[in-house]
Amino acid sequence: MKSFIDVSPDSHFPIQNLPFGIFSTDHDEIMSARVGVAIGDQILDLTAMCPLFEKHVPELKNPTLVFSQSSLNMFMSLGKPIWQATRKFLQTILSEDNPELRDSKELRTKAFVPQKQAKLHLPVNIGHYTDFYASKEHATNCGVMLRGKDNALMPNWLHLPIGYHGRASSIVVSGTDVARPSGQRSPGKGQPPVFGPSVKLDFELEMAFFVGTGNKLGERIPIQQTRDHIFGMVLMNDWSARDIQGWEYAPLGPFLGKSFGTTISPWVVTLDALEPFLVDGPPQDPTPFPYLQEKGKTAYDINLEAKMKPCDVSTYKTLTRSNLRYMYWSISQQLAHHTVNGCNMGAGDLCGTGTISGPSEDARGSLLEITWNGRDEIDFDNGVKRLFIEDGDEIVLTGYCQGEGYKVGFGECCGKIVPTMYRE
Amino acid sequence: MKSFIDVSPDSHFPIQNLPFGIFSTDHDEIMSARVGVAIGDQILDLTAMCPLFEKHVPELKNPTLVFSQSSLNMFMSLGKPIWQATRKFLQTILSEDNPELRDSKELRTKAFVPQKQAKLHLPVNIGHYTDFYASKEHATNCGVMLRGKDNALMPNWLHLPIGYHGRASSIVVSGTDVARPSGQRSPGKGQPPVFGPSVKLDFELEMAFFVGTGNKLGERIPIQQTRDHIFGMVLMNDWSARDIQGWEYAPLGPFLGKSFGTTISPWVVTLDALEPFLVDGPPQDPTPFPYLQEKGKTAYDINLEAKMKPCDVSTYKTLTRSNLRYMYWSISQQLAHHTVNGCNMGAGDLCGTGTISGPSEDARGSLLEITWNGRDEIDFDNGVKRLFIEDGDEIVLTGYCQGEGYKVGFGECCGKIVPTMYRE
Repeated sequence: MKSFIDVSPDSHFPIQNLPFGIFSTDHDEIMSARVGVAIGDQILDLTAMCPLFEKHVPELKNPTLVFSQSSLNMFMSLGKPIWQATRKFLQTILSEDNPELRDSKELRTKAFVPQKQAKLHLPVNIGHYTDFYASKEHATNCGVMLRGKDNALMPNWLHLPIGYHGRASSIVVSGTDVARPSGQRSPGKGQPPVFGPSVKLDFELEMAFFVGTGNKLGERIPIQQTRDHIFGMVLMNDWSARDIQGWEYAPLGPFLGKSFGTTISPWVVTLDALEPFLVDGPPQDPTPFPYLQEKGKTAYDINLEAKMKPCDVSTYKTLTRSNLRYMYWSISQQLAHHTVNGCNMGAGDLCGTGTISGPSEDARGSLLEITWNGRDEIDFDNGVKRLFIEDGDEIVLTGYCQGEGYKVGFGECCGKIVPTMYRE
Repeated sequence: MKSFIDVSPDSHFPIQNLPFGIFSTDHDEIMSARVGVAIGDQILDLTAMCPLFEKHVPELKNPTLVFSQSSLNMFMSLGKPIWQATRKFLQTILSEDNPELRDSKELRTKAFVPQKQAKLHLPVNIGHYTDFYASKEHATNCGVMLRGKDNALMPNWLHLPIGYHGRASSIVVSGTDVARPSGQRSPGKGQPPVFGPSVKLDFELEMAFFVGTGNKLGERIPIQQTRDHIFGMVLMNDWSARDIQGWEYAPLGPFLGKSFGTTISPWVVTLDALEPFLVDGPPQDPTPFPYLQEKGKTAYDINLEAKMKPCDVSTYKTLTRSNLRYMYWSISQQLAHHTVNGCNMGAGDLCGTGTISGPSEDARGSLLEITWNGRDEIDFDNGVKRLFIEDGDEIVLTGYCQGEGYKVGFGECCGKIVPTMYRE
């Protein structure tokens, strides 16, 4: 499968991918943020394709309304058959041997926007946000630091995907600066807390999935149906103030140590695009309860990387290389668990995986783990060292699936920490 | 102050209150859910008052649009000066010596709907929901049960209002049945978990406040400004499955043990209506950080009560009598704390207080505390006993401020537990 649009083999956005996003351009006069699909270094403006949608995808009612939205929520709420029909049509119309769009200079001028000229927005009006803790390696690393080797995993961890409700309002799109939070922290056991800007600011290498169609309150999404409800995935950096979190989290979990900002990548890669990269997940022992038992391949082979550029250094250094396939609890298990009590999900709900660490030391997905809670410095160019994130430092997450001669990728999830406006 | 509408001294809704809600009636043809204000046993339909709003409250632009919404969000987002101008106008137009509405038979016929004929809806499209843990007595009771008397309060508890993100999607209005959740629970330390319907289903006597106007990401709401941002309060029953919660909550907090349902009362009582009932809060020792220091009176004197009717009993029994003034961390402190890290709040965000227990044994706000985690049975009529909530049991919360000859009340927050649809 190949497009008439030139796509380099290293591009994250070949015709096999076609992720959905929300974009606008400076040249827009009336048109504002709207739905587009990434192809190579271009964006296909779906609002320009509406006559073709009407002709070729009649089951998609009112494409003009759906694609002129400033979020993907309406499109996502239409359900998997529509997502698939849309994707199939887009692959057809973009394919190199289809002249309908390829040979229409007028339509191409209207339909393609160079990504460089576009501003990408938060793709989804995020309703509710949940973050899981689904990597065994990450949970083990944290547990060893907190409780020692012998009690690293809590007794519940191997029985269910631990998760907590996060703050949806402070989720921002890649490229948005994030202000360092201030808050209370404990200077040491038994000592009174102090207040000020966080001194242990961290990133977390995560992925997250968007629910497209949900369930009613009191009902469930059975595990074998979860993938019909999940629209797609993004990269996520769950910025974490370890000192604030450490002081506040007992007994009700993370709160202000997380809610100052969470960054996601702008392009939502559909589960259909990820389907060829399904692989076996890690073995699960003990066998989960029936509601968490999944048939077939359960994990996605997505290469993940985190890079950091301290403010006074000019190049990025790779901090970690991980893979979503390491994750113990699959995204299907996460969604089945989330709804097993009857909790209702809806279009635009976001579920994070938690930090994705791998089995080796160079696959740790947070500075907490990489520096072992501030013990081991990371060396950068010019003698610059870091234990946690300083003001002006930048973090970039990236991820892709490797196909034969092409990549299905997520682009980048970037963020820079800027100083707090408040010091007391 | 007295209305031409007859209001009994026991009514929760005299002219001193005027809470806002969303209602509809069976007789509506085109009109659907819209904004109303409770007065006595009537609802004043604000959509019928628009010509009068245009005349008397010109600063409220487009009242027809604002009051024909099916949630209070748009009205709340207009800010405190508009809330106050609206309230003042309503008190004027409803007062016994004002003929404008009183003597217009035509207008009165259109404007008043008996509460008995109306269906009350969830008053707000709830964006994000946070639940605090702000009652010292409740936190102490839970701590004693879990960790013993000497470590009852966590070291952080007296320094900050502990809170966690809750699930907003499963918040329902009073009168909505709530299905018993199923989930994993631990039958005993060291034993593998079992799965099934919760056997320790509880209520929590809480109140909650709605944010009307918020703050931008990275900014704060200073404590002295918090009451300008809070629109009003409701009663809240934070249904809790203690067995599910107990197994899942370490280390990231409550999740499925809470997210199956939360019930709020339908009428939002404004802070202006509660203002006369401000009293001193409990002394705070140690002195909180400056961002939590509040001038003047900080607590509200709101009498709270929880009643229960087991399915096979015909009358309600009062389980507890408490008061919001017992709460250690004020709602202003809760909001200032929530935003101290720059977390952005918006119109329609809901913050629960956590269970409001008082200093005496008959002021405990949950069955967990009343039965001391299933140790002490509660006796009802006909020899019926309960430790936790059975299918078909009903819980009613109520609350009011006692004025001189009148009550400013919240009505009722009712819910019945129905059997789960799933047993495995």
